[in-house]
Amino acid sequence: TPPTPPLHRSFQNNWNVYKLLAHIRPPSTKSGYTLAVLNVGAPAAGMNAAVRSTVRIGLIHGHRMLAVHDGFEGLAYGKVPIPREKGVHRVGSWTGLGGSKLGTKRTLPKKYFEEISTNISNFGIHGLIIIGGFEAFTGSLELMEGRAKYEELCIPLCVIPATVSNNVPGSDFSIGADTALNTITTTCDRIKQSAAGTKRRVFIIETMGGFCGYLATMAGLAGGADAAYIYEEHFNIHDLQVNVEHLTEKMKTTVKRGLVLRNERCNENYTTDFIYNLYSEEGKGIFDCRKNVLGHMQQGGTPTPFDRNFGTKMGAKAVAWITGKIKECSRHGRIFANTADSACLLGMRKRSLVFQPITELKEQTDFEHRIPKEQWWLKLRPILKILAKYSIELDTSEKAHLEHITRKRISLESNI
Amino acid sequence: TPPTPPLHRSFQNNWNVYKLLAHIRPPSTKSGYTLAVLNVGAPAAGMNAAVRSTVRIGLIHGHRMLAVHDGFEGLAYGKVPIPREKGVHRVGSWTGLGGSKLGTKRTLPKKYFEEISTNISNFGIHGLIIIGGFEAFTGSLELMEGRAKYEELCIPLCVIPATVSNNVPGSDFSIGADTALNTITTTCDRIKQSAAGTKRRVFIIETMGGFCGYLATMAGLAGGADAAYIYEEHFNIHDLQVNVEHLTEKMKTTVKRGLVLRNERCNENYTTDFIYNLYSEEGKGIFDCRKNVLGHMQQGGTPTPFDRNFGTKMGAKAVAWITGKIKECSRHGRIFANTADSACLLGMRKRSLVFQPITELKEQTDFEHRIPKEQWWLKLRPILKILAKYSIELDTSEKAHLEHITRKRISLESNI
Amino acid sequence: TPPTPPLHRSFQNNWNVYKLLAHIRPPSTKSGYTLAVLNVGAPAAGMNAAVRSTVRIGLIHGHRMLAVHDGFEGLAYGKVPIPREKGVHRVGSWTGLGGSKLGTKRTLPKKYFEEISTNISNFGIHGLIIIGGFEAFTGSLELMEGRAKYEELCIPLCVIPATVSNNVPGSDFSIGADTALNTITTTCDRIKQSAAGTKRRVFIIETMGGFCGYLATMAGLAGGADAAYIYEEHFNIHDLQVNVEHLTEKMKTTVKRGLVLRNERCNENYTTDFIYNLYSEEGKGIFDCRKNVLGHMQQGGTPTPFDRNFGTKMGAKAVAWITGKIKECSRHGRIFANTADSACLLGMRKRSLVFQPITELKEQTDFEHRIPKEQWWLKLRPILKILAKYSIELDTSEKAHLEHITRKRISLESNI
Amino acid sequence: TPPTPPLHRSFQNNWNVYKLLAHIRPPSTKSGYTLAVLNVGAPAAGMNAAVRSTVRIGLIHGHRMLAVHDGFEGLAYGKVPIPREKGVHRVGSWTGLGGSKLGTKRTLPKKYFEEISTNISNFGIHGLIIIGGFEAFTGSLELMEGRAKYEELCIPLCVIPATVSNNVPGSDFSIGADTALNTITTTCDRIKQSAAGTKRRVFIIETMGGFCGYLATMAGLAGGADAAYIYEEHFNIHDLQVNVEHLTEKMKTTVKRGLVLRNERCNENYTTDFIYNLYSEEGKGIFDCRKNVLGHMQQGGTPTPFDRNFGTKMGAKAVAWITGKIKECSRHGRIFANTADSACLLGMRKRSLVFQPITELKEQTDFEHRIPKEQWWLKLRPILKILAKYSIELDTSEKAHLEHITRKRISLESNI
Repeated sequence: TPPTPPLHRSFQNNWNVYKLLAHIRPPSTKSGYTLAVLNVGAPAAGMNAAVRSTVRIGLIHGHRMLAVHDGFEGLAYGKVPIPREKGVHRVGSWTGLGGSKLGTKRTLPKKYFEEISTNISNFGIHGLIIIGGFEAFTGSLELMEGRAKYEELCIPLCVIPATVSNNVPGSDFSIGADTALNTITTTCDRIKQSAAGTKRRVFIIETMGGFCGYLATMAGLAGGADAAYIYEEHFNIHDLQVNVEHLTEKMKTTVKRGLVLRNERCNENYTTDFIYNLYSEEGKGIFDCRKNVLGHMQQGGTPTPFDRNFGTKMGAKAVAWITGKIKECSRHGRIFANTADSACLLGMRKRSLVFQPITELKEQTDFEHRIPKEQWWLKLRPILKILAKYSIELDTSEKAHLEHITRKRISLESNI
Repeated sequence: TPPTPPLHRSFQNNWNVYKLLAHIRPPSTKSGYTLAVLNVGAPAAGMNAAVRSTVRIGLIHGHRMLAVHDGFEGLAYGKVPIPREKGVHRVGSWTGLGGSKLGTKRTLPKKYFEEISTNISNFGIHGLIIIGGFEAFTGSLELMEGRAKYEELCIPLCVIPATVSNNVPGSDFSIGADTALNTITTTCDRIKQSAAGTKRRVFIIETMGGFCGYLATMAGLAGGADAAYIYEEHFNIHDLQVNVEHLTEKMKTTVKRGLVLRNERCNENYTTDFIYNLYSEEGKGIFDCRKNVLGHMQQGGTPTPFDRNFGTKMGAKAVAWITGKIKECSRHGRIFANTADSACLLGMRKRSLVFQPITELKEQTDFEHRIPKEQWWLKLRPILKILAKYSIELDTSEKAHLEHITRKRISLESNI
Repeated sequence: TPPTPPLHRSFQNNWNVYKLLAHIRPPSTKSGYTLAVLNVGAPAAGMNAAVRSTVRIGLIHGHRMLAVHDGFEGLAYGKVPIPREKGVHRVGSWTGLGGSKLGTKRTLPKKYFEEISTNISNFGIHGLIIIGGFEAFTGSLELMEGRAKYEELCIPLCVIPATVSNNVPGSDFSIGADTALNTITTTCDRIKQSAAGTKRRVFIIETMGGFCGYLATMAGLAGGADAAYIYEEHFNIHDLQVNVEHLTEKMKTTVKRGLVLRNERCNENYTTDFIYNLYSEEGKGIFDCRKNVLGHMQQGGTPTPFDRNFGTKMGAKAVAWITGKIKECSRHGRIFANTADSACLLGMRKRSLVFQPITELKEQTDFEHRIPKEQWWLKLRPILKILAKYSIELDTSEKAHLEHITRKRISLESNI
Repeated sequence: TPPTPPLHRSFQNNWNVYKLLAHIRPPSTKSGYTLAVLNVGAPAAGMNAAVRSTVRIGLIHGHRMLAVHDGFEGLAYGKVPIPREKGVHRVGSWTGLGGSKLGTKRTLPKKYFEEISTNISNFGIHGLIIIGGFEAFTGSLELMEGRAKYEELCIPLCVIPATVSNNVPGSDFSIGADTALNTITTTCDRIKQSAAGTKRRVFIIETMGGFCGYLATMAGLAGGADAAYIYEEHFNIHDLQVNVEHLTEKMKTTVKRGLVLRNERCNENYTTDFIYNLYSEEGKGIFDCRKNVLGHMQQGGTPTPFDRNFGTKMGAKAVAWITGKIKECSRHGRIFANTADSACLLGMRKRSLVFQPITELKEQTDFEHRIPKEQWWLKLRPILKILAKYSIELDTSEKAHLEHITRKRISLESNI
């Protein structure tokens, strides 16, 4: 049997292996395998760290590593000169860089099966590592369908979820969501502070995420929001009214600022403008409103250490897995992968990184709204709501203590 | 039997409960329980979010909530006027604030058992929520020991880990570590960039963490460090030499900058100065060195959304748990808690929040070095090392593609 | 003659005075003067530093210092309990805080002349320091007009410009503009980076500033914008067309991203939506567009050191000036100030801080558009345009050098 | 007479010229001049913006623009292949980048006169734009001395000050100082906040700047420091004692945190450690101390809009000036510049950009300590000291108002 690849073992938290690995040298013998790595969908902070890790760990395994530009489209047009990148790539300093250095596109592969197959054959690719968002998942499902017709597509593939929206099925987190959440939270802090020392004001802030309410919910929790409207938790005009009335009540007390978050696609009629108008009208004389569509700043910026390290881990794991899978599917020097478990998505599930056949993830997916059917963070929404409801003063003053003690002592004495 | 408290159910991800909770009102009837919350140890970003959540969720449960200033010492001197806080506390805007608004101290409770018992009795405290670092854990162990002698200490208590060092046993993460890691990573980026366009340079950067190498390791991974020296992974002069030689080799190629992280207490002799001198001497003529002790900036700053939300969740969970535990230990209107499971640490274990008796955590702890005996993140160190070793150029250029295709075609033709 | 106040001398850059001042103690004798300080208009970062400096320097002068809440309205309703601030103010840590700790309002004083006069008399106020934006200036002009009828208004006053818009006549800079510019620039960087590695894209970004194009112009220069539309430089449909054509041409080369800034009130018809639509239509097939209204994040945030120090200097200067002015206008223990030069605006003019009678600034003001008639930064706009026009490659490569030298040598040799 | 160069005119704030320039095209005829631009000394944020502006504006003037790598050393070794930069340079996105993209070195030109002269001749350079710190100034002085012996050095040159230290004579500001000050201030905020809620603590923070106390003073003013020790203002053990006593007094009141800044070379004996020990000893029982050497983070980071725009303006101005100067020194197609005013430093003096012969700046310079003999910002130090002395509470409370009014009314009534 082929030996376990060095990295795979390393995950077993074994001290001796650590020491060994620390001084490992690149293998003198090549594996003979070629892996291609590509980015699909919108850019997300940490994508570059995942590519860097994939490439470096791949080279350690002795593989030839190919980096594909511009996603599936780039794979299809591989033979056409790519004008943007004339020089030689270095992944050396990619860890801390935002965006996608490889270049990324949303294009799905179906219409390019012919060209992609040709390039897989021409470049001798034995495995694909696809780093991206929902399109990385759906694109990979298309490749699976294509296997029936195109033998070249019968190679192992691994999807690594990377999107600010955190809407990829099979993973609790996706690379880039932490950075986006940090940007949103910092910006909400700044927006709220703009009203410091001025009149009562409610801010309505629209976040990204497609139909997925992750960013709106988590930013709402972090920012102490009064409400966070999302698609996943249906709301009607009654709910809006309850919220605005509640906020109006609070504003009559010492509370001076309100914060309402709204996911971009939470409801096609109750738009940010609609909510702004409703709050403005109902708050008349009590508070005024401002709205803010955060926009693309949510996709940019330097990745947080979480996204860098998450990307790095995912890249390393994916290479270890695909190496084993290629060996498994290899007969007489030829790769033929046609089982469901040869195309997996690497997801974080309760802090374990697990490989799940993408075809099995289909039934967990709401394809119309591009979200998983079940999302773990929904269970945090009641806390957000409870915390928003009350602005109760906490009695921690010296007087309270003293009074209390006094009373206690009296009662103690009265017991005598 | 008493009904499950509303919040506890809410964690069961049940839609109907959500809808119900969204419109919950504070209970008209009081629980009759008094909970005290305090901060222990050094400040950590997110502590305030945990206190806010504890207080608000407690009030929803109908409890009387007391906030103790200045840790165990404040609990002991509860009757003494607390000069710093004359007004009435509001936890309203605490989510986004760094430091500890309550005030925090490292003092352990042992020497104050008498006073603390008196105040628990005088204030009528039925449960303690202790938010802090290693001292929160050891202090709670002391309280457990005190139970034998002081009946008043026989009340349920819950420790919530909050420290930048991430060294509390029983939890994969502690509140504040994410914020510290973000600060360190941003600063390392800036330090590395200071050498952009100038000569070859190696930066030796010392991070906080006591004996715990979490921050140094994770910041090293995020910053693409060449080495990260920590206490948990013993290193000797040979390892240092191997690293400096390796870095010297790299610096002879196109690599221009080196980054070496060192945990503050990784080794009492191989200090930051020692390593700086070694690298300076061995790198002479090839690179120069700079050292930087990051210091207290690691403890300050606005909490990240992760730390805010983590704190908020922990606070809510702790209140729900302690409410149940008080009921459990309550007989004829009197609380008597003397079992191990009435004093728990709330930890994140593989993304589940679990309550673990603190006495059971003793055997998992290296008390001398104030770290858990097993730490999950150690298994990431091999990746850091592997990634540091190579600065291999990745062949993704247009020419490479074209050549390859050309060669392929030739070989295809030659097959005919 | 009354002696020069201590601070005033300190500005004379005299070493001995420095040494003296370094050990100064608060005066044992009081000046007998009462100064009131207030914030007017929208909050701006650095306002608090100006208030802190005003108060502390005032106390050194031996004055009684009063802090008025909520601007002119607060001065009018001085006798009404101010609910928000129950405790005692401390200005100690105000330097680094954004917003307005005093509370600020846009209300103009005209309709409150009666009440303001009463309060000036009741509180015994001898001088007013008004820190704020355009309303601070126009409000002060109103107070000047009121002097004819209300004797109490015949006290010296000093306006300190503080607004993100930088639109106050008489000063090259206003407190808060530097912080806003930093926020805008950081956000534009992040927005531009969101397109890294993806398709050709133009971002249309709307900035604040009322009719004043300062922020749009300076952010455009800092961000390398392709155009910055402002009110002060009239533009028509032809200019828009020239810009979009130019950008289209650039996008056909290696340039992948465009950045267009638009001041919020630059033109009532050529709105951000209009420009977005125009660019989207004309760029079809070549680039796509995104728009972003930055909104209130521009007003919040921690002040930059520039705004803190600028505010501090302005506050100190204003107190020194008003102290002298009160003495000047004082006869037999009564203040009567009715000359134009007893109401000044403290402005930075070519890095000197100068006091200018506000009535003299009237003719320099375009009151309809709330901007100065002449604005120094307009002369920077040609540079912005020139720099935007070209994306010329700079030949600095090794080959260029070598070729050049080779050619040179050949020609030298051929000359022999 | 030769026509005024287009850009120079543009600075005259002339509307028609603006409109013209907005649609300017690169000249069809070349000027025939070659300008070289280089960076000298340590990197500073904004250097790249200055290079970009120089290059683009130069191209508009019709010049051939050469970018020299690695400062004077690079100019000397111009013919040697520069390994680091293989590709073609683009200055397009340089505005927002920190460090020096060209590469910068501290090396002075004296020992390379021969090689530099040869390269000036070989590359046909007619003018030099030298962007850097104190070495840019002293290096240019050396070049002036070299003119006597090397005819090739008789070409116009312009120094643009760029260094975090702000120690270049002839300019109130240097490119990069604003960014460094922002980093220091943010870090001091974070450090101070690390003590929030914990015991009384004094932080001793060491800043960069060589002998120049600009950064320590301005950061001290911005951070509300209790003292800022610098070389320019001599201090002895008595001053240190006065400060520590003063701080000790303050700490006995409600003040909980102290901040002391120290410039790195303010005194060779009163080191950061010395001051830390003194404060620790004298503060024993009242406060504890922490020290922090900020180090190289002060040189890195993304440039602020001020530094970007300052660099851009300086670059444009320098090209306009040198173009005129070359014409002036040109006879029969040959440049010969040997007057003092053909080698100028472009400085900001009270917000005007002025060209000053570098030889005239010699007498304004303290060469031993590498600072100007007179520094404008020294006059701000008394404010820093005054503001540090007092932590006086400001009586702005509702009660104060009411009491006051009550008293007033009583006295008014008693007057009747």
